[in-house]
Parts: sequence; structure tokens; C-alpha cells
Amino acid sequence: MAHKVRISLDAMGGDHGPSVVIPGAEVSLTRHPDTELILFGDSRQIEPLLAAHPRVKAASRLVHTDVAVAMDAKPSQALRQGRWKSSMWLAIDAVKKGEADVAVSAGNTGALMVMSKLNLKMMAGIDRPAIAGVWPTLKGESIVLDVGASIGADAEHLVHLAAMGSAMARVLFDIDRPTVGLLNIGVEEVKGLEPVRAAAQMLRERNLPHLDYIGFVEADSIGKGTADVVVTEGFAGNIALKAAEGTARQLGEYLRAAMTRTLRAKLGYLFAREAFRAVREKMDPRRSNGGVFLGLNGIVIKSHGGADAEGFAAAVDIGYDMVRYELFAKIRQTLGHDAGAASSIQMVGGAAS
Amino acid sequence: MAHKVRISLDAMGGDHGPSVVIPGAEVSLTRHPDTELILFGDSRQIEPLLAAHPRVKAASRLVHTDVAVAMDAKPSQALRQGRWKSSMWLAIDAVKKGEADVAVSAGNTGALMVMSKLNLKMMAGIDRPAIAGVWPTLKGESIVLDVGASIGADAEHLVHLAAMGSAMARVLFDIDRPTVGLLNIGVEEVKGLEPVRAAAQMLRERNLPHLDYIGFVEADSIGKGTADVVVTEGFAGNIALKAAEGTARQLGEYLRAAMTRTLRAKLGYLFAREAFRAVREKMDPRRSNGGVFLGLNGIVIKSHGGADAEGFAAAVDIGYDMVRYELFAKIRQTLGHDAGAASSIQMVGGAAS
Repeated sequence: MAHKVRISLDAMGGDHGPSVVIPGAEVSLTRHPDTELILFGDSRQIEPLLAAHPRVKAASRLVHTDVAVAMDAKPSQALRQGRWKSSMWLAIDAVKKGEADVAVSAGNTGALMVMSKLNLKMMAGIDRPAIAGVWPTLKGESIVLDVGASIGADAEHLVHLAAMGSAMARVLFDIDRPTVGLLNIGVEEVKGLEPVRAAAQMLRERNLPHLDYIGFVEADSIGKGTADVVVTEGFAGNIALKAAEGTARQLGEYLRAAMTRTLRAKLGYLFAREAFRAVREKMDPRRSNGGVFLGLNGIVIKSHGGADAEGFAAAVDIGYDMVRYELFAKIRQTLGHDAGAASSIQMVGGAAS
Repeated sequence: MAHKVRISLDAMGGDHGPSVVIPGAEVSLTRHPDTELILFGDSRQIEPLLAAHPRVKAASRLVHTDVAVAMDAKPSQALRQGRWKSSMWLAIDAVKKGEADVAVSAGNTGALMVMSKLNLKMMAGIDRPAIAGVWPTLKGESIVLDVGASIGADAEHLVHLAAMGSAMARVLFDIDRPTVGLLNIGVEEVKGLEPVRAAAQMLRERNLPHLDYIGFVEADSIGKGTADVVVTEGFAGNIALKAAEGTARQLGEYLRAAMTRTLRAKLGYLFAREAFRAVREKMDPRRSNGGVFLGLNGIVIKSHGGADAEGFAAAVDIGYDMVRYELFAKIRQTLGHDAGAASSIQMVGGAAS
């Protein structure tokens, strides 16, 4: 392990700001002591917390700013008020300047995406950003992308999502050739959208390295773990994710209500408490917290705004892994063939200038 | 109640054919004795079952056909082999001819949709068919459409879906002015698809009768019962439905596994058995079985292929309600204003010919 992983944190992001970010960083540091942190935010709020979290204090540098992006600000407002100076912008900017390897924020998703795109710019050969999420399955975990960064996708973009998602699966799951499926629907006159069909053909023909294309996947197969990576455009991906989250909460509500309705049920709950806890843990959104922004010249991780310290730590962990296990090198390995044309043009341009 | 509700049944549809359809019809008949049935299918298989189900026998007329559409046939194959003569075609044709008020089939969805469209044709003013499903929620039930008939939708089609869905909600839930939401995603640079935004504006401006437009709904709010009717195009709708079904099954698996892992958990399960049963019942897909094909000149109900008799009966019940409580009249009430232009053109055409 050569150098430390350098992580910039938007300490003001999320519903709870520094009171979750600092303890979360502490949890992640205990798991990855080879981490350096840069904290951006209001020093009056952060310094007392650092005093209580000496591990973070020792591993971090604090950069004060008064400006924080509001959780409900529209991206345009956030840019007007927070460009150049907000904790969110500065955390991303540290990645841009090469002072950090990855930025983590629990702030406003729309603002974070717009600022990331504006500041870091798109990777050569990739047109639009994506957010990749980790989805708990019966087999373990899968990656689903795009879960809401870009609406609509042509076939080429879906292929790029497949390449970036499989690189992320290699990083997180330590498998050499993740299985990749395209999200589609099986019940209609003409099976699926044209770009999805075209992407399927491209994935079969191009036979990209480190990527095992297994065909169409329906949304009820995501949770079975049928594919390590499930690829779709951002509208459908966001709807799949939210529908699943909503159903999990709904079932939780039903169970809670049923288990408190009668004395027998309450007794049963007491006996089976450990079992319920195990189920809750499996479905715990904190475990799989951390959306990865893909397609940019730099890694940005979005934590759930409502995450607690444990949840925020999970997002920081994902950021750590993306750097330590070289997400970008892995994306390039897979997209190498593919982006060949684009990158040779760039090189010619570079030589001529 | 004037006349009986006349229901044509594709007795060969579904994974189990007549062995589920006939007992299912019996269950529904006990709830709605004012029903007449026409059964289409292989009389050698059906007659012995009728002997065992005298109530169905007394209320039905049997029309023999040798031809059944295979569950895995592509729509084009199904048409080649089953047009004019399959049990599925004939059940739909009975509606076309006015011999039945509604057709119910547990057969191949794609084939059923293609045959319904070809035979019944689209309603005046509606361009494309939709499938509406009933979604269990924390408040009761909601209607979600389109869950997979047509991919993509312009704003006008989304408005038509809103009108048809709210008519269906009036029939099923007995409310005069159902709340209607447009499915959208809240986490992206530009909020939502252009047609969804345009449809929102149209719904606000047109102020259709018997329809209370409440704005955008995210997929995690469907299960909360935020809107009586959730409107989306068929790709996203199918993905929402399947993601929810998959998550419910996944959680069921987790629970089953956890509740059998230790003696304490098993004991707990025994005590709380009734509570578990209540939860299972709430999420029972049989309770909300029955997709309604909308936008056609006639009502066709699709039952899950794997439904048992209880599930099939639920689909027949939905068909009964759609007729008894006058789905078409209610759709016309809401679309009256809207389809004004189209229907006056038709009337002019009729007068001139």
C-alpha cells in the first residue's frame, strides 16, 4: 500500500451535518487507518466535535467555510450561493486540485451532481454522469446504475454504464469478471426499448474485458442477485430503487403493527428478537449506503442525507475502496477498446498543441 | 341491478388451465350470483370439472375449442396459431360480439394484449392500450398504470391514463374524486421527463371531473398510499411493480430463513404465527390479482398465470366490478370534456355517411 487514501469530506452535508460526519469519519478511520481527511465546513461547529474524536483530529486538516448548501436548494440556487466557497464545492474542488482522491458528501444530491459535473468535468468518451447504488440481494449485493443522475440513455451510454458498473463491482466484490444484465421488461408487445436492445447487441459483440454480459434482467430479479451489475437509465433505475425501498418500509410497518397487536404476537417477537434483528440488518439501508458518481474525472460519493454515523462511515468506506482498488484503472481496462477512438483523437490533439 | 354480468372465460389460460379457472369461477360465483359465464376451451378437460362444480355448470355455457395459446408463445406466434379459434381469441371475441361484458384470461399477457387490441380496437380518442394493476398500500389499495402495455408516453397519453385510472378507482374503491399522482423522480438535475412535466400542467389546467390531481409522486410513496391512482408509462410502471414484488419476496425469504435458524426463533414464530399470517395476507398477491386492460372498446382482465383458484376468482371479481359499476361510463364522464373534439368529429363523420 503506497500512499494513504486522501478523502475530502463535506462536513456540513446531510440532515445532521458535522454531528454525523465527524463520528462517521471516526468509525471509518478505525477500519482504514491509512486514510487522510480534509474537512470542509464551519470550524465553530466542527472543532468541538474534533476534540471529542481525537482519531479524526489527528488524521485531518480542517478548512473553514461559512457557506453550506441547503438540503432543499435547487441546483441552480446551490450554484449561485455555493460555487467556489461552500463546503460541498470545496470538497469536490480538493479532488479537482489533486489534494484528495475522493470526495464524500451527504448533502443535496442535485447540487452535488451539478457541482461535481461543473468542476470535475466528464471523463473522455463519457457523455453523461451516472449514480451507482449498492443493492442488497439474496446472494449478497449487486450494483445498480444509473439510479437517477441522467434521464434516458442511448445504447452507447448504456454500454458505458455497463463498463463503469462492472469496474465498480470488481472493486467492491473482488471478482474478476462480474455478470452484467440490462434492466428490461418482459411483458409487452415489443420487448423493451430500442436503446436497450441495441445495447444488448453491442455488449454481445464487443465482448468487453472483465465483463460477463448475461442478457436482460427483470426488476424482480435484482433482489435475487441474478446479475452483479444491473444497468438502466436513471429514470427507471431511480424508480426501481425507490419502489424497493418503499416496499421494504411497507413490509416493516406491517410487521411492526402485527407484532404488537396481540399478547401472543408480542411474546413471539420477544423470542424471535434476534431473528428480527438479523433480518433488519440484512435490509439495513446503512449497510449499503453510498451512491457513487460515475463518469466524471474524479470520484464523488453521495451518502444518504438522513444517514447516521454508521451509515456515513459506510459511504466513506466505499470511497476508500474506490481509490484503494483503483476504480479508474479498472474502468479504463474495460473501456480501453471502446474508448480507443476517442482517446487517440485526444492524443493527436495533445501532440499538435 | 338490471341484467346479469356476462363474463367470458379463457378456460385454457394460465399455468394450470381449467383446473384453476373452473374452481376460481365457482369462488367468484358464490360472491356474485348475478353472473353468467361463457367458457371457452377443451370440453374433454372442462366437462369433468363442471360435474364437480355444479354452480359453475348451472351458470355457464361451454364452447369447445381445441386450440389454446401457449404461455410462452410470442404474440406473433399466438396470432398465427390462435386467431379466430383459440380459447383466448374466442373469449375476447364474445366481448366484441356483445355476448359478454368482460373477458378474463390467465394466459400469455403479450398474446392477450395483441389479440384484444386487434379484435376490440382502441377507444375513440385513446391511442395506446394500458394495463392497470392494484397495488396494496399502508392505507388500503391504489391503482398503478400503465404496468407494461405500452412503452413510453406523451403528455396526452399520460392524461388519458389519469382519466382511465381514476375511473377504475371510482369503480373499485367507491370514491367520487380519487387522488391522482404522476410518477416521477426527485433526485436529478432536471426534475423529470418532459412529457411528465407537460402532463402535470395539462392535468392542473384541464381540471377534469372526478379526478383530484395532487402532483408528482415518487416510487417509494406508492406503498404509502399517497395517491389513489399513480400514473406512468409502461416501462417505468412495470419496473416499479416488479421491483416491489421482488423486494416483498426477498424480505419473505429473509424472514423464513431467520425464523427457522434457531430454536428461540422457531418458538417465536409459533407464538406469532397469527401475526405472520396477517402480514402475509396483506401482501398476498392473490388479493390484488387482476390487471385491467384499458383503452380498448371492451374490458379484458388479465389474471396472473400462476394464480390459484382464489387468485383467479379475484381477477373475475374485478371484471364483475368493472361491468357492474360501469367503468366505461365513468371513463367517458372524465374524458368527456377532453375527448370532446375527437367525438364531435366522429359524430360529424357519422352524420355525413
